[in-house]
Amino acid sequence: MRRLVVIGIGMGPQHVTPEAAAALSSVDYVLSFVKGADDPLVAVRAQVCRRFGDVPLVVVPDPPRDRADPADYPAAVRDWHAARVAAYRQVLTERPGDVALLAWGDPSLYDSTLRLVDALAADGDVTVEVVAGISAPQLLAARHRVVLHEVGQPVHVTTGRRLREAVDAGQDNLVVMLNSTVRLDGLADWQVWYGANLGAPGEQLVAGRVSDVQAQLVAARERARAADGWVMDVLLLRRERP
Amino acid sequence: MRRLVVIGIGMGPQHVTPEAAAALSSVDYVLSFVKGADDPLVAVRAQVCRRFGDVPLVVVPDPPRDRADPADYPAAVRDWHAARVAAYRQVLTERPGDVALLAWGDPSLYDSTLRLVDALAADGDVTVEVVAGISAPQLLAARHRVVLHEVGQPVHVTTGRRLREAVDAGQDNLVVMLNSTVRLDGLADWQVWYGANLGAPGEQLVAGRVSDVQAQLVAARERARAADGWVMDVLLLRRERP
Repeated sequence: MRRLVVIGIGMGPQHVTPEAAAALSSVDYVLSFVKGADDPLVAVRAQVCRRFGDVPLVVVPDPPRDRADPADYPAAVRDWHAARVAAYRQVLTERPGDVALLAWGDPSLYDSTLRLVDALAADGDVTVEVVAGISAPQLLAARHRVVLHEVGQPVHVTTGRRLREAVDAGQDNLVVMLNSTVRLDGLADWQVWYGANLGAPGEQLVAGRVSDVQAQLVAARERARAADGWVMDVLLLRRERP
Repeated sequence: MRRLVVIGIGMGPQHVTPEAAAALSSVDYVLSFVKGADDPLVAVRAQVCRRFGDVPLVVVPDPPRDRADPADYPAAVRDWHAARVAAYRQVLTERPGDVALLAWGDPSLYDSTLRLVDALAADGDVTVEVVAGISAPQLLAARHRVVLHEVGQPVHVTTGRRLREAVDAGQDNLVVMLNSTVRLDGLADWQVWYGANLGAPGEQLVAGRVSDVQAQLVAARERARAADGWVMDVLLLRRERP
């Protein structure tokens, strides 16, 4: 029986829990995709592997994905997913042992690691384990020293792509992930708490009324990208009560 | 300048990140409420304090709160909150130094620690810091090896008290916290992933179609309470697609 262990590492070594560290030490190697020659996120994964059990890190080139917004988005994602499964399957076939896959943030939110592992586990005699990690919305809330909702109220977690439909449906307290741009048209009087590259050297924080800080958000996003060579951001948006 | 540091400890020592451990070691003492003579959650906090920096733990009796559902629920919560602030303020006045407050799970979700600290910080020369911790919904997802939403879809996080209004508003993928009972009438054909006392000795997991597992959920909740002397549970509910 082979173990495939999905481990949430938050934003790096500072977020690796004792539970995650124990899981890391228990595997034979860590498997990770690498985007290009100097993928900064692989550098963080390598740091995690060294610090927690000195586990070997096996990297595989990430199959290319159409970065534009294709007409058939679900099909493009499916193809990419299938190529990733095939790439991992080849390593698993060649290299025996228990394997960990490190999920940035937490594997339970907008992360495909668990889907990859489920596809690999369908092959045969495999058990899947999952270890939770600190997610970006939590780190956003911590940095801004806020709770993600008002007392006893809900919080709706969605993607930049679906922000508009959530607002139209009357949601008034939203966490928005997977943003390709910061587009807040029509939300001028909402409050926003923004974070880009949380936990990374280029971390940026902005908070305020959307109409007051929209230009700052766009600039912050570009500063984060310039500093780290990549950008991932998250927003908490709250409709102002009259 | 005095520091008040809110630290998310997840479900115990196994979830204390290096960032949280560093924050713990940086304060003079930890302040915690205690409910009754053998509060099991205080025992976990004491374990965390011993293991990470051997920080002194100062406990204060938790002011009583009307456990029934009073007609004026917001007022009852406000009174309790004010009594808690007053109790902490007295300790802070008598005992100098930087102080940490440990939040069960993560301080960003259905946790009042940050509100307490904001009230205390309003008194004067205080800075507030927050460190994120593993939350119950993340641990639920990890234990069941699921993502909290379907690919690219939202997840709506709410309370047991507001579950019905979210369902009526058309939400079809819900995380439900702060349940006082497990009431899933009318959701017979939904899928549920359930966890009680996650990370504690009495941990219970149940998953399946609501109509198939509803009796099991109720029994699991009682087993958790019997094992640990307290119960906190969380559900992921997903409307079955036709």
